[in-house]
Amino acid sequence: MRILGIDPGTATTGYGVIDVVGSKCQLLDYGCICTKAGLPMPQRLVQIFHALEQLITNRQPDVMAVEELFFNNNAKTAISVGQARGVILLCGAKKEIEIQEYTPLQVKQALVGYGRAEKQQIQYMVKTYLNMKQIPKPDDAADALAIAICHAHYHATRRMRQVEE
Amino acid sequence: MRILGIDPGTATTGYGVIDVVGSKCQLLDYGCICTKAGLPMPQRLVQIFHALEQLITNRQPDVMAVEELFFNNNAKTAISVGQARGVILLCGAKKEIEIQEYTPLQVKQALVGYGRAEKQQIQYMVKTYLNMKQIPKPDDAADALAIAICHAHYHATRRMRQVEE
Repeated sequence: MRILGIDPGTATTGYGVIDVVGSKCQLLDYGCICTKAGLPMPQRLVQIFHALEQLITNRQPDVMAVEELFFNNNAKTAISVGQARGVILLCGAKKEIEIQEYTPLQVKQALVGYGRAEKQQIQYMVKTYLNMKQIPKPDDAADALAIAICHAHYHATRRMRQVEE
Repeated sequence: MRILGIDPGTATTGYGVIDVVGSKCQLLDYGCICTKAGLPMPQRLVQIFHALEQLITNRQPDVMAVEELFFNNNAKTAISVGQARGVILLCGAKKEIEIQEYTPLQVKQALVGYGRAEKQQIQYMVKTYLNMKQIPKPDDAADALAIAICHAHYHATRRMRQVEE
């Protein structure tokens, strides 16, 4: 199973692609889709949409895992992130990929087993799970890889439950 | 000049199409793009995108005017509206239409000349400007028409300023 993890944002959308082989996760690709602050919002959204479309075409993921934000005290940021999320969910749905959404709490619990884990702990676990020499940079790409690993974890748990039932 | 006004939302996206002929606004079309609550968000966004794409193809607007939200105490609603806005801005930009955004304050000032105008006053002015027999329903469609009229107003004001300069 190939998983594309996404951490949405209008300025920077992090992505990470992993393969799940047996019980292991293998790193395939990671990085960021960056758009310039000076560009009008509609053009930034077009750039995100086209870059993601290209990434999906190149990497052919089976599932897209996207961070779900519930809390954000800044409504302006919430709308901005929401706009990027909308374009990302649209792109995945148009490409007919399965889409799963995970809250930051679920990501933390899946990777560290503890809902209040710090960012550094998450990043360390991403590095460990994917057998990387360094913590992946930038943070948005590390977050996207964490979301992809989170989906691998929940998928494995769901399968185990099905076997038990 | 043909203006497509949009009031974005994941459940209901209002739209209104008007033609500006001389100093007058003429009603062409209005309504709502509605998506079912039970449908997963990515599919709802695809429905909004396709319906809007169809509307733009059919009506060929010169400009799209979209409501810009700054304040929203509910972050969940802000993200949800943001997602719909993202898809709408993307659709307009992909179709290479000029996009303008207006705050609720700008809409109120343009239609009623008063930033604290009530919803009913706005709706009454929409009916008057467009020479309609009834106030347009539902509210989201009336809001979309108000945004379209708002753009006509600001566009005329900008042109007048250019003539004066």
